[in-house]
Amino acid sequence: MIQVYIHPPQKTWKSISNRNLQNISYLRSLVVPIIDNVKTYGDIALKAYTRKYDHINLKSIRVSEEDLNKSDIKISNQLKKSIEIAYHNIKYFHEKQLHDEPQIEISKGISCWRKTIPIEKIGFYIPGGSAPLLSTVLMLGIPGKLSGCKNIILCTPPDKNGEVHPSILYTAKYVGITHIYKVGGAQSIAAMAYGTESIPSVYKIFGPGNSYVTIAKQIVSQKGRVSIDMPAGPSEVAIIADDTANPEYVAADLLSQSEHDTESYTILVTPNNQSWINKVKEELKKQFLNTSSKQNIIEKSLKKSKLIILRSLDECLALINQIAPEHLIINCKNASYWGGKVINAGSVFLGNYSPVSAGDYASGTNHVLPTYGYAKSYSGISVDSFVKKITFQKISKKGLKHLSECISVLSSEEGLFAHKKSINIRIK
Amino acid sequence: MIQVYIHPPQKTWKSISNRNLQNISYLRSLVVPIIDNVKTYGDIALKAYTRKYDHINLKSIRVSEEDLNKSDIKISNQLKKSIEIAYHNIKYFHEKQLHDEPQIEISKGISCWRKTIPIEKIGFYIPGGSAPLLSTVLMLGIPGKLSGCKNIILCTPPDKNGEVHPSILYTAKYVGITHIYKVGGAQSIAAMAYGTESIPSVYKIFGPGNSYVTIAKQIVSQKGRVSIDMPAGPSEVAIIADDTANPEYVAADLLSQSEHDTESYTILVTPNNQSWINKVKEELKKQFLNTSSKQNIIEKSLKKSKLIILRSLDECLALINQIAPEHLIINCKNASYWGGKVINAGSVFLGNYSPVSAGDYASGTNHVLPTYGYAKSYSGISVDSFVKKITFQKISKKGLKHLSECISVLSSEEGLFAHKKSINIRIK
Repeated sequence: MIQVYIHPPQKTWKSISNRNLQNISYLRSLVVPIIDNVKTYGDIALKAYTRKYDHINLKSIRVSEEDLNKSDIKISNQLKKSIEIAYHNIKYFHEKQLHDEPQIEISKGISCWRKTIPIEKIGFYIPGGSAPLLSTVLMLGIPGKLSGCKNIILCTPPDKNGEVHPSILYTAKYVGITHIYKVGGAQSIAAMAYGTESIPSVYKIFGPGNSYVTIAKQIVSQKGRVSIDMPAGPSEVAIIADDTANPEYVAADLLSQSEHDTESYTILVTPNNQSWINKVKEELKKQFLNTSSKQNIIEKSLKKSKLIILRSLDECLALINQIAPEHLIINCKNASYWGGKVINAGSVFLGNYSPVSAGDYASGTNHVLPTYGYAKSYSGISVDSFVKKITFQKISKKGLKHLSECISVLSSEEGLFAHKKSINIRIK
Repeated sequence: MIQVYIHPPQKTWKSISNRNLQNISYLRSLVVPIIDNVKTYGDIALKAYTRKYDHINLKSIRVSEEDLNKSDIKISNQLKKSIEIAYHNIKYFHEKQLHDEPQIEISKGISCWRKTIPIEKIGFYIPGGSAPLLSTVLMLGIPGKLSGCKNIILCTPPDKNGEVHPSILYTAKYVGITHIYKVGGAQSIAAMAYGTESIPSVYKIFGPGNSYVTIAKQIVSQKGRVSIDMPAGPSEVAIIADDTANPEYVAADLLSQSEHDTESYTILVTPNNQSWINKVKEELKKQFLNTSSKQNIIEKSLKKSKLIILRSLDECLALINQIAPEHLIINCKNASYWGGKVINAGSVFLGNYSPVSAGDYASGTNHVLPTYGYAKSYSGISVDSFVKKITFQKISKKGLKHLSECISVLSSEEGLFAHKKSINIRIK
C-alpha cells in the first residue's frame, strides 16, 4: 500500500522528491483555444463551454441577488456557526500581518517611504466538482478584504441545475463578496483575465483548480498583464515522526491528505524502528477499510505514498528541506526545536495535536500554499498577496545637491549621460 | 519629436496606455533550444554560446579570485566613494523593511505564527553590453544580503577579452558576492535554473535583461521549479506637471528615460496651457542637440513619446492609474497630495527636485520595478523579494478539542471525511 525505502542513499533523494508532472504541452494545446475563444467571443463562448462541460444552458452568468440572499435559509445553523468560528480565527491571524511602515529620512532633505496599496481588482476561482470548497472562499476572501481590495469577483462552476452550492454563496456573502459568476474551468480564468460582457477583467487571479485551470492561469499570466497567486498542484503532506508519534494519528494524517487527489504527494520520514513502522502500516490498513468515502482516490494515492526510514532526525530534516513540502507535520519530541530547522515548507504543524486539517479549516493560518517544491521560493497566501508596495521619495534642492556627485559619477560609469544631466540641470 | 494629444477622449486612453510588445512566439522559438542545450550539455553549451554571442573562447566560466581582487586597483577612488554613498543609502532604506512578527495565540491552546526565511539559493543576472550596470548589483545585492540569503551567484556576459568590467566586480565584492560567472543571455538563465558543472542551480532568478533574457526567465519559471523576480520590459516614465513645473527639468527627465532603450515608454501628462507646452518642446530640442551620447537611441525613443493635455490634474491621475507606469514624477504644487491619489505605479517622485535618476542610483529606493502595466499587481524589489514566510502552528489537545466541532462540520460539508477523522481520532 505504501512504498518503503530503508536508508536510501543521498543520491536517490532527488527522485524521492520528484512529483508527478502532467503533460503540460498536451494540456496547453487544449486550453489555448478556450482562452482565445473567450477573449474573442466573450459571454457567447462562456455559455457554450458551460453547456459543453457543465451540461447546462445558462440564462444569466451572474448569480442573482435573490439566489445570494436565499442561500441563508438553505444551510444549517451548525454550518453557520462553524463558518463563523473559522472566519474569526482566520481574520485574527491575518489581520496581524497588516503593518504600516514609517517615512525614512535617508539624510537631510531626502525622504523615502513605501505605501501599501491594495490591488484594485481581483478574482477568485473556487472549484466546484463533487463538493463545495467553502473553506477556500474564507482563505482568499478574508485576507483579500483585510488588505482593502474593493473589487472582488468570484467564479465557480454551476451544478447540473445551473446553480452554485448554497454554502459557497453563504460564505461568499459572509466575507463580503457579492459578484459571483457561474463559470468554471479554463474559460473562467480567461474571462477574469480579459473580461467579457458579464465578467469584468481583474489584475490578479487567485485560487486552486484542476490542471486545466492551473495551465490557464499560467497562460494568461504570460500573455496578458494579469498576475496569479502561485503555480498550484496536487496537495502534499510530509510527516516527520520519532517514537513519541502516535502511529494512529500518523496514519490518519496520511489518509486525510490522500483523499484530496489520486496525485496527492504523501511521505512519512522517520528514524523509528520496524515495530513502530509496522504499527503505522497496520493502522493505514485498518483506517483505510473504515473510510466512508473516496476509497478509490485514497487507494490510488496511497500506492504512490512513501515511507522513508533514515538514520536520524537531522537526516529527516535534510531530506524534508530538499522536498519543500506544502504541509509538514513534525510529530516528535521537541517539535519546536526541529521546526526551527525547517527551511523549505509551506506550513508547519508541530506535535501530536496539530493535524493539517486544523490549518485547512479553522486554526487561523492560510491553506493556499505552494506545492511542487515551490515552497523553496514562494510563501502561502497572506495579506501580502493582495497588495503592492509603492515607493515614494521627496527630495529638496539641498538634498539633491548633496547626492549629485554620487549620481553623476555612477551614471557616467554606466554611460547614461542624460541621467547625469537631469541632476545637474536642477542644481546648477 | 513627441506626439501631442489634446483632450483625448477616455475611450482612447487604452491605446495611450499600450506598450509595444515584441513578438513573443518568435523569441520563444529562438530561446527554447538554447535552454534545452544548456540543460543537456551544461558547460559545453555555455562555452559554445559564449563563443557565438560574445566572440570569446572562455577557459574558465567563473571569475577567479585573483580577478575579483584586482578589480580594486582598476577603479577610481571617486567611483569607490560614490558606490559607498549609494550603498549606505540603499542599505538604510531597505533594512527598515525587515520586521519580525509575533507568535499569535488564536485561542487557548492554539498558537500560530509566521517565520521569515531567506531563499536558500538565488541568482542575479546583470546585463553587460555597452556599459557596466553596477547600480543593479547594488539594488539586488543589498536587499538580498540584508534578508539573509547565503548562496548568491551572479552571471554577466564577458567582454571581447573574456573579462567582466572591474566596476561590476568591485561592486559585487563590496556587497559580498564572490561567485561570479562570465555568461550572459538566455544561456545564463538556463544555467541558473538547471545548473551546470560550473554554475550551481538556484531557486529564484533576479535581474533585468534584453528580451531574450526576459523570455528565458519566463520559460524556466514555467518549466522548472525556479521562480523569477518579475516580468521585465523596457524602462518607463510618466510625468504629471502643472504650471509650477520647470519645463527644463521636465524635458531633462523625458530625455533621461529615453536613453535607456529605443522602446522606452515616456509620457508627459498635463493640464497646462500651450505656452508651457511649447517651452517643454523647445527644451527637448535644445537638450537633445546637446546630448553627448546615445542620440540615436534617444531620437527613436522620443518619436514614440507622448504629450497628453488633459483638463485637470484629477484627470491626469486617472489616466496615470490606468497606465501604471514604472516611474511616476509628480511635478506639481501639492505634489504629496496628488501622490496620495496614486494607485498604480512602481515608484513615485514628488516635486521639482526628485528626478528618477536619484532613485536609479542613490536616494535609497530600489530601481528594479514593474513595467508593462504590471505595477497594477506587482511591487518593485524589496527585502520581501528574497524571503518566504512559513506559517507554523502548535495546538494542544484541549485547543484541538475546542476546534473539533467546527472542523468536523466544515470538512463534512466539503465531503472530506478522512480530514474529519484525523481530528476525531485525536480527541476521542
